[in-house]
Amino acid sequence: MAGSSFGQVFRIATFGESHGGAVGVVVDGCPPGLEISLDEIQAELDRRRPGQSKITTARAETDRAEILSGVFEGKSLGTPICILVRNQDARGSDYEPFKDIYRPSHADYTYDAKYGRRAWAGGGRSSARETIGRVAAGAIARRILRERAGVEIVAWVSRVQEIEAAVDPLAVTLEAVESNIVRCPDAAVAERMIERIAAVKAEGDSIGGTVDVVARGVPVGLGEPVFDKLEADLGKAMLSLPASKSFEIGSGLAGTYLRGSEHNDEFILKEDRIGTATNRSGGVQGGISNGEPILLRVGFKPVATILQKQMTVNARGERVELMPRGRHDPCVLPRAVPMVEAMMALVLCDHLLRQQAVR
Amino acid sequence: MAGSSFGQVFRIATFGESHGGAVGVVVDGCPPGLEISLDEIQAELDRRRPGQSKITTARAETDRAEILSGVFEGKSLGTPICILVRNQDARGSDYEPFKDIYRPSHADYTYDAKYGRRAWAGGGRSSARETIGRVAAGAIARRILRERAGVEIVAWVSRVQEIEAAVDPLAVTLEAVESNIVRCPDAAVAERMIERIAAVKAEGDSIGGTVDVVARGVPVGLGEPVFDKLEADLGKAMLSLPASKSFEIGSGLAGTYLRGSEHNDEFILKEDRIGTATNRSGGVQGGISNGEPILLRVGFKPVATILQKQMTVNARGERVELMPRGRHDPCVLPRAVPMVEAMMALVLCDHLLRQQAVR
Amino acid sequence: MAGSSFGQVFRIATFGESHGGAVGVVVDGCPPGLEISLDEIQAELDRRRPGQSKITTARAETDRAEILSGVFEGKSLGTPICILVRNQDARGSDYEPFKDIYRPSHADYTYDAKYGRRAWAGGGRSSARETIGRVAAGAIARRILRERAGVEIVAWVSRVQEIEAAVDPLAVTLEAVESNIVRCPDAAVAERMIERIAAVKAEGDSIGGTVDVVARGVPVGLGEPVFDKLEADLGKAMLSLPASKSFEIGSGLAGTYLRGSEHNDEFILKEDRIGTATNRSGGVQGGISNGEPILLRVGFKPVATILQKQMTVNARGERVELMPRGRHDPCVLPRAVPMVEAMMALVLCDHLLRQQAVR
Amino acid sequence: MAGSSFGQVFRIATFGESHGGAVGVVVDGCPPGLEISLDEIQAELDRRRPGQSKITTARAETDRAEILSGVFEGKSLGTPICILVRNQDARGSDYEPFKDIYRPSHADYTYDAKYGRRAWAGGGRSSARETIGRVAAGAIARRILRERAGVEIVAWVSRVQEIEAAVDPLAVTLEAVESNIVRCPDAAVAERMIERIAAVKAEGDSIGGTVDVVARGVPVGLGEPVFDKLEADLGKAMLSLPASKSFEIGSGLAGTYLRGSEHNDEFILKEDRIGTATNRSGGVQGGISNGEPILLRVGFKPVATILQKQMTVNARGERVELMPRGRHDPCVLPRAVPMVEAMMALVLCDHLLRQQAVR
Repeated sequence: MAGSSFGQVFRIATFGESHGGAVGVVVDGCPPGLEISLDEIQAELDRRRPGQSKITTARAETDRAEILSGVFEGKSLGTPICILVRNQDARGSDYEPFKDIYRPSHADYTYDAKYGRRAWAGGGRSSARETIGRVAAGAIARRILRERAGVEIVAWVSRVQEIEAAVDPLAVTLEAVESNIVRCPDAAVAERMIERIAAVKAEGDSIGGTVDVVARGVPVGLGEPVFDKLEADLGKAMLSLPASKSFEIGSGLAGTYLRGSEHNDEFILKEDRIGTATNRSGGVQGGISNGEPILLRVGFKPVATILQKQMTVNARGERVELMPRGRHDPCVLPRAVPMVEAMMALVLCDHLLRQQAVR
Repeated sequence: MAGSSFGQVFRIATFGESHGGAVGVVVDGCPPGLEISLDEIQAELDRRRPGQSKITTARAETDRAEILSGVFEGKSLGTPICILVRNQDARGSDYEPFKDIYRPSHADYTYDAKYGRRAWAGGGRSSARETIGRVAAGAIARRILRERAGVEIVAWVSRVQEIEAAVDPLAVTLEAVESNIVRCPDAAVAERMIERIAAVKAEGDSIGGTVDVVARGVPVGLGEPVFDKLEADLGKAMLSLPASKSFEIGSGLAGTYLRGSEHNDEFILKEDRIGTATNRSGGVQGGISNGEPILLRVGFKPVATILQKQMTVNARGERVELMPRGRHDPCVLPRAVPMVEAMMALVLCDHLLRQQAVR
Repeated sequence: MAGSSFGQVFRIATFGESHGGAVGVVVDGCPPGLEISLDEIQAELDRRRPGQSKITTARAETDRAEILSGVFEGKSLGTPICILVRNQDARGSDYEPFKDIYRPSHADYTYDAKYGRRAWAGGGRSSARETIGRVAAGAIARRILRERAGVEIVAWVSRVQEIEAAVDPLAVTLEAVESNIVRCPDAAVAERMIERIAAVKAEGDSIGGTVDVVARGVPVGLGEPVFDKLEADLGKAMLSLPASKSFEIGSGLAGTYLRGSEHNDEFILKEDRIGTATNRSGGVQGGISNGEPILLRVGFKPVATILQKQMTVNARGERVELMPRGRHDPCVLPRAVPMVEAMMALVLCDHLLRQQAVR
Repeated sequence: MAGSSFGQVFRIATFGESHGGAVGVVVDGCPPGLEISLDEIQAELDRRRPGQSKITTARAETDRAEILSGVFEGKSLGTPICILVRNQDARGSDYEPFKDIYRPSHADYTYDAKYGRRAWAGGGRSSARETIGRVAAGAIARRILRERAGVEIVAWVSRVQEIEAAVDPLAVTLEAVESNIVRCPDAAVAERMIERIAAVKAEGDSIGGTVDVVARGVPVGLGEPVFDKLEADLGKAMLSLPASKSFEIGSGLAGTYLRGSEHNDEFILKEDRIGTATNRSGGVQGGISNGEPILLRVGFKPVATILQKQMTVNARGERVELMPRGRHDPCVLPRAVPMVEAMMALVLCDHLLRQQAVR
């Protein structure tokens, strides 16, 4: 009932607050005999950790992962895998002055209203630190997808405010994405994005944009109509990420302006398989993968934390002025890239295993 | 594992193919003592049924609902409520010539690939007829929301291709929505939408657009972080509807162009409660409702069925020409309005009851 | 949350009250391409229907099943299968005089207390009629088990009060079970059981006993430690049957009197596979099937409805005398046999498919 | 799908192998604002830990619990609570010689067959160490039950082989249970039980018996027909415990020998509430609690590990002689008492919260 678990066969349960003892995840349903590489998991965590570049928050966390169960002699046992990351940089006291102030567009007020209390330091459970567990589990899911089905997942920053990149989803590589700190494979545009983010950061402000993600090599037949359609579960996965506000698949919003005669994807024979000449469907038809690349776009709002004076109210409903201190991410997008990849992997891996069950 | 059920406390399971014996739903988890009105349910089904106007398909179905269980002396028992609608206009033979042809952007191919077979008449399980069960269950969910929390849900067609309506989500009424056949409360724009749809229909083509929906009076505290955030479950619900391609909450995609200083919703005291001066969050913060109206936008692609010649392949992978006959919806939007309202009601009702559990 | 669904991959949801419009089941997760035989389903329903012999209730119901969805051209589609049985013999008025009287050891009081209301005619949802849906779904599960794994399930009445049968679980056949109306394959003992039941019926009283069930040919590896151990799910399944009070697996209660040196099952090589010389484990070790026959025993209390004067209270807490009229089962055991087989089939089928998922 | 989580609203997920890094549990769905006492949790763990008396295994583990999340300023946040216990006494090497030998009536063979591998040291996931997570979570569940509903749970060893205790379930106290090392409140019988266990231990053998448990003060209305009946979920909970072989509720097996006229519980008015004169129903009618004490009996087989020579086969199917070394529990019963109490608490707490949801 409580909402901290995700997936049905490949099922993860995350736990932890940003300034508590630790954050982590328990993965239940990982097939046995899978090689589990702590380095591989750590590499993904390093991509999402704070303090990795001048355009991310200065909060310094090494985020070292530890595997506590489910792995024996380097391979999965088929039993629950618990992965733990201790919280180090617990400067919770920074938040003391603001503990009863509701920061605009943060979860402070709604958590208080729902639970009657909250871990006020650093956003507690609503902090993006919670995604550490998702990214760690996502690394395992990616290996399953790669080894069992040859699936390849790549995400990138496609737009920062109005600065838009031109990227070919069929060709884009992880290397190209990682070639710059904003994680946009369009080098020229990436420069402008970085400048924009730096400028906004200097003003203590924040900005948003979009992340695109592609999954190539997805087998035909993943997705469980009518409610667990692949796009429905992918949408839920992405919209469960902090700061996400929109989701599009395939032609997305642009496709809603077209006519059917312009939008339909003609079926053709591709060497050994049936495919489509175009891919406005984004790799999913009737809620089921059709073998074409799965293309998604996720919109992220500007980060709520800004280093500017704002008016708000406190827990007693009194009007107060808020002037935050310290460290923040001016733009969530670069660190959102590994999160989006992880959620894509978690959904596809879960559906890959679900499809085995109903065969 | 199979995906035909939705919700956790207020849980529905739909069943039925478009040309099988019947379609329907089982609602498990409806609180006891609720007045169940067959007329109320039928009224919602009438809003989604085909053949209701000149801009919808001519397929004539009366879609009469029958309640088989869970209700005694007019009130819910707290046991499963089964609602059945028999299929009448089963002109399945119309589809005989196309039974092994994969219609572009339909689910024919993916169903065949996933299941190894399909009910080829009228799309079978992938037909929008499946939503009858959702709409029937949604009518019950709406009554629970209305009686227990005073929640009011209204959806409308906000855009047809580029024809966009101007509607105040705080004031829009069901009456205004129902005042014309396109279900757009902006009368002048509605006329143009109707003309456009009629023109496109005359050409045997189809078009898409967007449906907006608002839920007013939603109590604070609904939504279960971190995966069952309210926007995540709402996104999944909407993206499980046939032909949906995009989802936005609050400021949505437009909000991703703004700065944090422009986007943040200032907290203020509203008579007796804490509220926000603006509502770019769309009534949800940190995945939990904040008491402001919940605002969503769902994008629908143009209907895949068009009465024009198309090239495709058949089950043997042979290139064939497809020239559909008969009846189709040139635009799904008017009939999608009650579906979108139903999905909003199902998610909110489920979370209302879930919130009772963890109190 | 509400408890009318069972299973995870092969998932069933039953609905219906004893004197409402209908009872039935929706099966979600049946693999596609399975031949679905209405006759096969009906045959199982005929084994559990009332009025089949002189030692069962005289309530006459033909219990004709109708398949409404999920089947096309005689085979399963992989979509939800809804099976419906209309209630015919709805002599609800018989119960009118007792509608506010709490019958001893019935569910009248607890349903009223939990739901604030109940369908008082014939026990409503608490009636054994609800098991019609289980038995219908069980028939499908049995076919999957038979076709995919060669699993064979046979249950029989092993004891009526102190009258105990001697049956070899390795050799017992359905034919032997069906050879007499009490469903005990030990012919001599069966006679005594029938006499006892008839005598007790004549006195307007009721009796209980035990049903044994064996599943032969169960593949190794079914069961999901640590909570969904095979015996745990089997125990839940059996204890969810009306009137069941006890559950034993393998050596069961008798085994708790032995020493480890007497109880342990020695592993030996059986032609091509590893097996055990004895089977006190009942075919399950560590919660996982080991390839030996699964042996269970379920205890059923005497039926609560007796045609004798009893003291009780009514809804207002007033002491009243209850003198039931009409028809009742003096002993639930003969009709419980197909129910026990159905629950065994549902659990094994679900775990067979679950095991496919985590491979 | 994988089976390491239990419960629906108050949901726990356990993880860990006996000789891995740690064992633990994540509790999702604990209501916020509950005082969480590490001492209270530790006290329960101390009751189940090895090495606590001369009649339990000598394996010395302090089993210190650590709370990593979900608690802030001593109270639950409503977010997942992760409790961790590091494995200290990891003498895995003891098992090296037996790593490819299948110990009779252990889970070695079935784990290998199901997963293709296993953590062979100390039984890995199949070790009773897994129950540490259950007992820790059970301590939280007990507090919720006590604070919200005044529920009191007491379990005790009711029989060791044929040595049976006479205990009044209405009066028995935790103190009486803890007054001796075998956890049998019948002092005289307890002495004989202890002698028997000591004697059997001296012979390197093991024995079983039964544990009884009572829950007093359970509110009316808990349990969700028709599959999640209270006795069904309780049965599953108990049968998921290592070495359990039988389950009885109320009159249990003995009740199946009675007539309805002897077995029915007459309803009477008890001061302010409706109750029953007798309690053969064991506090549950129609799957729903009726306000009377819930009475269960769980049978445990003799421990599979014995220090005697046994014949078995190894992973290659070769016949081998097994002569275990070292430490073992001659009788699981004394340590099973806190486990049984924990499972009772987990089921009742989950249903208490579930009942809130459907109100």
